[in-house]
Amino acid sequence: MAKVVADITMSLDGFVAGPNPTLEEPLGKNGEELHEWALESAAWREQHGLEGGETNVDSEVIAERVATVGAHVMGRKMFSGGSGPWEEDPRSMGWWGDEPPFHTRVFVLTHHAREPEEMEGGTTFLFVTDGIESAVEQARAAAGDREVLIAGGATAIQQALAAGLVDELQMHVAPMLLGGGTRLFGEGANPIRLEATRVLASPKVTHLTFGVGS
Amino acid sequence: MAKVVADITMSLDGFVAGPNPTLEEPLGKNGEELHEWALESAAWREQHGLEGGETNVDSEVIAERVATVGAHVMGRKMFSGGSGPWEEDPRSMGWWGDEPPFHTRVFVLTHHAREPEEMEGGTTFLFVTDGIESAVEQARAAAGDREVLIAGGATAIQQALAAGLVDELQMHVAPMLLGGGTRLFGEGANPIRLEATRVLASPKVTHLTFGVGS
Repeated sequence: MAKVVADITMSLDGFVAGPNPTLEEPLGKNGEELHEWALESAAWREQHGLEGGETNVDSEVIAERVATVGAHVMGRKMFSGGSGPWEEDPRSMGWWGDEPPFHTRVFVLTHHAREPEEMEGGTTFLFVTDGIESAVEQARAAAGDREVLIAGGATAIQQALAAGLVDELQMHVAPMLLGGGTRLFGEGANPIRLEATRVLASPKVTHLTFGVGS
Repeated sequence: MAKVVADITMSLDGFVAGPNPTLEEPLGKNGEELHEWALESAAWREQHGLEGGETNVDSEVIAERVATVGAHVMGRKMFSGGSGPWEEDPRSMGWWGDEPPFHTRVFVLTHHAREPEEMEGGTTFLFVTDGIESAVEQARAAAGDREVLIAGGATAIQQALAAGLVDELQMHVAPMLLGGGTRLFGEGANPIRLEATRVLASPKVTHLTFGVGS
């Protein structure tokens, strides 16, 4: 069965977005800085149809993920930044334009039913209204023997961890204290022991891989 | 001038103690597990007058700290678990018995004035009532050309970071999600860019060192 990986970048103080997110600044104040390590890498740029970038360990980590992912799961906020009915969502086709960088089926968690959207470059957005377990099950079926990537945001990853659906947690820890914003990990969850399986680092970010016990 | 290092172990979800701390279980539910990496190391055991333990990278990290520290700063809760007047504090001499493992002057942040306590083995507890800046200044004077170690808890480290007193942040990230407890980093602090200077890892813990910009 497809391995399920939750993969996200977090500041050292635990935030995946800064304070006061807006449509113009969806990651909040200073939140874009979390992802500098990725944006400057050759593999991320290639994934997004751009040239250049650095060929370093950060790029290798992204290339590895691109090579293994078979389907994505993400929350509504990560998809569009919106909430409520789709007709009122100014980014109802997502953040990424006509050719999103996923190149797989992407299962979007939402309370608002909607037909699938087939995009250019092999990405199809499918909208799941019956929760994280259903989304991961559908993503597993779509991924075949490749991995299911839970790409965020915080709520989707929290729900997947709480439901025992995550096999591996891939954290990219950015060297900054954001001081506020959206926390990846809330309070009130059950304790979980992790198995530290890999540590890779560049000056820009530390990549920590954990196996999640059942 | 003496380098000031904040050094603490945190769960991946950002907690330095688990939920519901008590006098019997001062680190809260599952909080002791954060420090397993240290307790099992040869260097920690030697520091505490015990034999045996593992001679691994975790032990080397502790030995390095023991070799460089010249004075400690800590919060009242870390010192005794108590608050309020000392006469009512059941652990008013600290957690560590007659011979605490610090072997330097230890400046304890408190609202309640008190004469110094000279312990066995070279540890002297001094009680500072005029705040973190004063405590660090006194610790710098005591440390000479060695390091000042801000040993915790969360509040002391937050105060020192907010006051711009910390030169280096040494985080030991334990592979677990505690799900609740005392967070190291709160909300409402100013953003701080860090410089990732070293990453060391064992299966038990990841040691992340950061320079703190001014």
